[in-house]
Amino acid sequence: MQLLLLNGPNLNLLGQREPDIYGQTTLASIESALQAEAEREGAQLDCFQSNFEGALVERLQAAMGVTQGILINAGAYTHTSIALRDALSGVAIPYVELHLSNTHARETFRHQSFLAAGAVGVVSGFGAQSYSLALQGLLNHLRCGRS
Amino acid sequence: MQLLLLNGPNLNLLGQREPDIYGQTTLASIESALQAEAEREGAQLDCFQSNFEGALVERLQAAMGVTQGILINAGAYTHTSIALRDALSGVAIPYVELHLSNTHARETFRHQSFLAAGAVGVVSGFGAQSYSLALQGLLNHLRCGRS
Amino acid sequence: MQLLLLNGPNLNLLGQREPDIYGQTTLASIESALQAEAEREGAQLDCFQSNFEGALVERLQAAMGVTQGILINAGAYTHTSIALRDALSGVAIPYVELHLSNTHARETFRHQSFLAAGAVGVVSGFGAQSYSLALQGLLNHLRCGRS
Amino acid sequence: MQLLLLNGPNLNLLGQREPDIYGQTTLASIESALQAEAEREGAQLDCFQSNFEGALVERLQAAMGVTQGILINAGAYTHTSIALRDALSGVAIPYVELHLSNTHARETFRHQSFLAAGAVGVVSGFGAQSYSLALQGLLNHLRCGRS
Amino acid sequence: MQLLLLNGPNLNLLGQREPDIYGQTTLASIESALQAEAEREGAQLDCFQSNFEGALVERLQAAMGVTQGILINAGAYTHTSIALRDALSGVAIPYVELHLSNTHARETFRHQSFLAAGAVGVVSGFGAQSYSLALQGLLNHLRCGRS
Amino acid sequence: MQLLLLNGPNLNLLGQREPDIYGQTTLASIESALQAEAEREGAQLDCFQSNFEGALVERLQAAMGVTQGILINAGAYTHTSIALRDALSGVAIPYVELHLSNTHARETFRHQSFLAAGAVGVVSGFGAQSYSLALQGLLNHLRCGRS
Amino acid sequence: MQLLLLNGPNLNLLGQREPDIYGQTTLASIESALQAEAEREGAQLDCFQSNFEGALVERLQAAMGVTQGILINAGAYTHTSIALRDALSGVAIPYVELHLSNTHARETFRHQSFLAAGAVGVVSGFGAQSYSLALQGLLNHLRCGRS
Amino acid sequence: MQLLLLNGPNLNLLGQREPDIYGQTTLASIESALQAEAEREGAQLDCFQSNFEGALVERLQAAMGVTQGILINAGAYTHTSIALRDALSGVAIPYVELHLSNTHARETFRHQSFLAAGAVGVVSGFGAQSYSLALQGLLNHLRCGRS
Amino acid sequence: MQLLLLNGPNLNLLGQREPDIYGQTTLASIESALQAEAEREGAQLDCFQSNFEGALVERLQAAMGVTQGILINAGAYTHTSIALRDALSGVAIPYVELHLSNTHARETFRHQSFLAAGAVGVVSGFGAQSYSLALQGLLNHLRCGRS
Amino acid sequence: MQLLLLNGPNLNLLGQREPDIYGQTTLASIESALQAEAEREGAQLDCFQSNFEGALVERLQAAMGVTQGILINAGAYTHTSIALRDALSGVAIPYVELHLSNTHARETFRHQSFLAAGAVGVVSGFGAQSYSLALQGLLNHLRCGRS
Amino acid sequence: MQLLLLNGPNLNLLGQREPDIYGQTTLASIESALQAEAEREGAQLDCFQSNFEGALVERLQAAMGVTQGILINAGAYTHTSIALRDALSGVAIPYVELHLSNTHARETFRHQSFLAAGAVGVVSGFGAQSYSLALQGLLNHLRCGRS
Amino acid sequence: MQLLLLNGPNLNLLGQREPDIYGQTTLASIESALQAEAEREGAQLDCFQSNFEGALVERLQAAMGVTQGILINAGAYTHTSIALRDALSGVAIPYVELHLSNTHARETFRHQSFLAAGAVGVVSGFGAQSYSLALQGLLNHLRCGRS
Repeated sequence: MQLLLLNGPNLNLLGQREPDIYGQTTLASIESALQAEAEREGAQLDCFQSNFEGALVERLQAAMGVTQGILINAGAYTHTSIALRDALSGVAIPYVELHLSNTHARETFRHQSFLAAGAVGVVSGFGAQSYSLALQGLLNHLRCGRS
Repeated sequence: MQLLLLNGPNLNLLGQREPDIYGQTTLASIESALQAEAEREGAQLDCFQSNFEGALVERLQAAMGVTQGILINAGAYTHTSIALRDALSGVAIPYVELHLSNTHARETFRHQSFLAAGAVGVVSGFGAQSYSLALQGLLNHLRCGRS
Repeated sequence: MQLLLLNGPNLNLLGQREPDIYGQTTLASIESALQAEAEREGAQLDCFQSNFEGALVERLQAAMGVTQGILINAGAYTHTSIALRDALSGVAIPYVELHLSNTHARETFRHQSFLAAGAVGVVSGFGAQSYSLALQGLLNHLRCGRS
Repeated sequence: MQLLLLNGPNLNLLGQREPDIYGQTTLASIESALQAEAEREGAQLDCFQSNFEGALVERLQAAMGVTQGILINAGAYTHTSIALRDALSGVAIPYVELHLSNTHARETFRHQSFLAAGAVGVVSGFGAQSYSLALQGLLNHLRCGRS
Repeated sequence: MQLLLLNGPNLNLLGQREPDIYGQTTLASIESALQAEAEREGAQLDCFQSNFEGALVERLQAAMGVTQGILINAGAYTHTSIALRDALSGVAIPYVELHLSNTHARETFRHQSFLAAGAVGVVSGFGAQSYSLALQGLLNHLRCGRS
Repeated sequence: MQLLLLNGPNLNLLGQREPDIYGQTTLASIESALQAEAEREGAQLDCFQSNFEGALVERLQAAMGVTQGILINAGAYTHTSIALRDALSGVAIPYVELHLSNTHARETFRHQSFLAAGAVGVVSGFGAQSYSLALQGLLNHLRCGRS
Repeated sequence: MQLLLLNGPNLNLLGQREPDIYGQTTLASIESALQAEAEREGAQLDCFQSNFEGALVERLQAAMGVTQGILINAGAYTHTSIALRDALSGVAIPYVELHLSNTHARETFRHQSFLAAGAVGVVSGFGAQSYSLALQGLLNHLRCGRS
Repeated sequence: MQLLLLNGPNLNLLGQREPDIYGQTTLASIESALQAEAEREGAQLDCFQSNFEGALVERLQAAMGVTQGILINAGAYTHTSIALRDALSGVAIPYVELHLSNTHARETFRHQSFLAAGAVGVVSGFGAQSYSLALQGLLNHLRCGRS
Repeated sequence: MQLLLLNGPNLNLLGQREPDIYGQTTLASIESALQAEAEREGAQLDCFQSNFEGALVERLQAAMGVTQGILINAGAYTHTSIALRDALSGVAIPYVELHLSNTHARETFRHQSFLAAGAVGVVSGFGAQSYSLALQGLLNHLRCGRS
Repeated sequence: MQLLLLNGPNLNLLGQREPDIYGQTTLASIESALQAEAEREGAQLDCFQSNFEGALVERLQAAMGVTQGILINAGAYTHTSIALRDALSGVAIPYVELHLSNTHARETFRHQSFLAAGAVGVVSGFGAQSYSLALQGLLNHLRCGRS
Repeated sequence: MQLLLLNGPNLNLLGQREPDIYGQTTLASIESALQAEAEREGAQLDCFQSNFEGALVERLQAAMGVTQGILINAGAYTHTSIALRDALSGVAIPYVELHLSNTHARETFRHQSFLAAGAVGVVSGFGAQSYSLALQGLLNHLRCGRS
Repeated sequence: MQLLLLNGPNLNLLGQREPDIYGQTTLASIESALQAEAEREGAQLDCFQSNFEGALVERLQAAMGVTQGILINAGAYTHTSIALRDALSGVAIPYVELHLSNTHARETFRHQSFLAAGAVGVVSGFGAQSYSLALQGLLNHLRCGRS
């Protein structure tokens, strides 16, 4: 099984900015841990991060016909990008939306997501563990549909 | 470690109503599977369901000083009950909010939650697996805080 | 044919509070008159009133597989209870929403109903006769669908 | 007793457009059935349909001093015509608002009615039977006021 | 000088409906008094009333090239008719908007006017005298522009 | 008969600021012309202008028991002063609201008036003539009530 | 192939009002040019203009079973008429909405259309050529559906 | 004189939850102090607390014909319960609304109260003393009406 | 202890305007009664009323370093004056907001207060007694903080 | 004559994604057909597609002084990009906005366009033919201005 | 060159209230420093502060024909005073709006300014230096217009 | 001291587009003038412009640990980019927001800024001089904090 992990703007700063808030885990270490977890589950996970909306759109397009499931932490683009929403619905691959922080505990403009309506499910607020929970949720969905 | 699982209105119907949508898993089987999973993680899980807002409030109050973490699927009360929000912040026990369905893919009035702002995190959309993911997220939070 | 009449909060006060406005008819007399009318139409009508949202939810759940049609005057819960909406859509029994007063001629917050969207039809403003009109509408719907 | 039934725009299409949705009953057959029902109750019912807002206003004006009660299905004008509202309050004759479909289950702009606030009551969602229920409600109101 | 007085829906009822509120002056007597007042000022006043939005639009169109100024009490169409607004701006004749009652003291939906933005001025709340004040305002505007 | 003319902030600039827009008539000349017109109608008109909200409130209070009718062009305070509204309803003297310009043709925040709901009537858009029309409207109202 | 062109209120003024803005083309010349263009495409085009909402509704009803496609420039009724929307969905004939001016560059209340949601497509802003573009779009849709 | 003190959800936690914020006074001690104060004023005070909306409604109903005045701290139900509003207006007993905290200094959803419009008065923000101030206000109202 | 009582616009009319609604108590008598009550509690109360927003601001500024607590009935300025809010937060003296009438039972624009968020507490609806209750609440707060 | 066709995000997927909805026409075939059509009209058409907002902005900038007219289908950026709006008004070249689908029949957030206000006209809903209609409209506008 | 510096309500408290937040600079020292800076630039600066809206309006009026440019920190009146806006546009002298604090980082009601739309520019957030920056901006504008 | 100047979309067009509005100063000349001014103040200024949101985000990230202060004119991204807001708060370097034009005098959607809340201060409306004023404000802030 082929999976894709997409990270949006500023997530490359993980472990560097505000370490007392976001922890000292870097994006690289999250990605390699998640790849290992995926492998243990018999799946291969590709990772991609970009600060460019257009690059994220094109990475999604390239997944068509290749990837069976997507994990996406679109960061700030979650709340502003209809282009990502269109790309996700265009490629028609099941995806899980995830966030490090609990977006409902932050500014009002982070309560709305252009991506959530089409997602299998949403996981938010568990820090780096959100990635692992989202992976487990996605794998379960791909194996048996909703239980 | 002592945990509590709270289920709100109509969740006692699980496995009985609209089985083609919600699956044939009953609430009882979800509860016992989750209790087994908790036990494997070294925790004891109490389960409580009620269709009464007041009964849910009182079960939360009784958890004060006893329970270390809460899983709550408040169903429809998620969107209408300030009393539950007050009870959760009153007892000051970490909690994870969860939903069977992806509430963002449903009616607009289900997009708002009175409970989410105070939660550790939120899990929604993974059917019965939402309970398991929420449990893992809660346990991880209780053991090491946000990673 | 088995029918159910549900009355929500404060409707047990009928005939006692503000008799010059609401008339002197008690809920008991409305219920027995409606039961007689139902019987003449070859149907049996069960009656239930509660001031508890949770009790109304549970009475609805108990109707599953027993009742063919429901008349509901949810009173104030009409405008605040998503739990009742969920219970009604969960049991999937045709229902008619009714009100003694014309809710559109009262405060703005009574113009919105969480229940109306799923109802067969709505009757409001005819005082005690609203019950009889709603019963006739429900019976006709059950016998022949929309004409 | 002299009554008036007013039907607004596009209701002359009944039985012709989308018969699988609206049934095969024509407006003419609804009108004659309702006239017969009125006669059995000792009342005479005049019927008028127009697609012109102004014509409906003038028919209402002509009812002043002649008609004791009005049944009105204003169709689309329900949601846009303050002129009809003014005419109804100008002639000061009790009226019942009715709709074939459950307007609360349709587009948001059909949830508001300029006419409902001044009506005796509202009946919606029962198909052709809405006319009969509205007639019964009106007659009862004219005979004894609110019970 | 050639002037036009337009009256909208239900204003033909003046003096007949709710005489204790609107007085016993009929529209005919208002029109003839206003015609006499116009004549004294050296102007000729044509009068037209209709309950049809389309008829009012066409009467406005017919005024192009003939009429130098317009008095318009559009009644309920004040708040709903963009067609009248377009006709008024199409014929490009100065007009004064007037109302018998103080529309700002009535329902919120009467506070908005589609016609006011293009008017020379607005007069409301003085009963039948509103017509006379509006005429004086119009005449003064036509003679010397804004003073 | 004793009348009062109140002018609010910046109206003392009349004839000085933007004469091509507001004309060259000063407030003093408007006041003396209106006093002459009032005298011809057998009334005495007191004039008061202030740029201070508090001074306008106190002038209104001083009118209690002395003045039979008020003309008020509150300028910008029309849209921001609840204190003036309270003073007007406190002294309970009939008043007419007037404006030089057509406030509905200007910025949105000038469409709302805190004073209009309690006024006999409103006159706006006729330049200096608005004062004369408002005076005629007020006098007519005081002599015979609404016609 | 039988087509229908509907024009709404004030469009009969074309070529007469504000010729420097709207050009000197009359509605008659637009209609005959469009009929010629339709004929060249092997279609017959009927033309109808009215300032009456009701007349437009009835012309639409008369098209049922006769006309295969409709071009509609509803003018001001575009933004206020639910009755036209109902008539269009009632007759269930494909239609294209068109406007002379770019409605999105005008007042906010012209940005909303009650008709657009059900249309094949919308053309606006090209002056008289909007009619020709709409005709081409409609013909193409009728011949091959969406390409 | 017979009085009633009603406390809503979570107020039974007083003195237990967040003592640094809400103080160490328990509800029991507030109730007994208030009963003593009432007695000194020649009145008898009944006390009732519930976390159930329905139980509060029924306690209010039971007060009809027995109680002359009500003190109500409805807690979270202040902002969500139309059923309590209906019960209060149904029993038609004068009541004072009170809050421990200053609700206007908290979340926006606590600024609205379904109960305030019908109350004699409102007291908020004085901690446990709010009960005493509300009692004095109620007693004064019952003795002499508004001074 | 030095206290200050501030009264805003139109409150100098107390006992003079609408005595059947507001009672016959004048502001002077309220002030002297409150001064006596304050003295009995060992505090000295200064009183100040103005219809000028600026004068109220300056009286507040003068209280800095002199006054320990403030009672403020800002009347209409409650709902429109950010300057008063700034002055109150600038001088940083605890204050209680009070109103004669229940502002929540009046027009919607009186439901919002610019001052409430910073107040110790709010008392409204008890007529002249509101002053006494507010004084008791303020004294208690100054003596022991929130109980 | 030199023209430019701009296509925004995800339009490179045409003919690949959801072919049953969007047809099997690829963007390349649309572009070459449109270039041929332009050539027949004596114009040369450059084509550019990008998923990057910044790239579209820069392509627009490069058109300054070279291109006489622009066709733009900005896809999702239509609804979110003020940068494109600024680029279009900065280069000051006439442009036509076009869409494959009828955006008014989709989600609410697609009803608003940042680009439409400055466009010559808008064409939406005709599938691939929208490009051809927009080209004809643009050419006509460039040749003779609005007819 | 003659300039005017206007300061609104509570700015006379500078250096006295909350010195840890607003610094210890008094308004007097800001004014004299700014006058010195203006003099160095060959301009004379008049300074005026008032807590009275009316006094600020009148100081602006007195500047007509005397002052070439205005610096205004209207404090709280920035957000509530249409009278100041009218005075500024009435005297038609270029002005710069300035604030000590960054108003966009404070309460929502401080994000709107009635004055900003007519200003040359706005400077906010630089503490006492905002005055100097605004002066430089104003001088540059007066000397050469926008660069 | 190391500073960074960021310019967003379309600002590379300065001096080229609409020179009569924006002047003939190019971005290059603004940048070199500002670098000279910075140097005179003992600071080094790096300049970067991009039309790509992602490129601006990455330039900000690269400033972490290098730059002490930022000047940012984000152009259209000011109003749409949460990603820039996140990058600015992520790198935690003090920044000043600036605009050439007075954004409050333009379209409503330019009144909101995602960046302003976190800025030291905001300067807008002074054309090219806005850059110089912002630099002075930033330098002063870095040297002594808010005065």
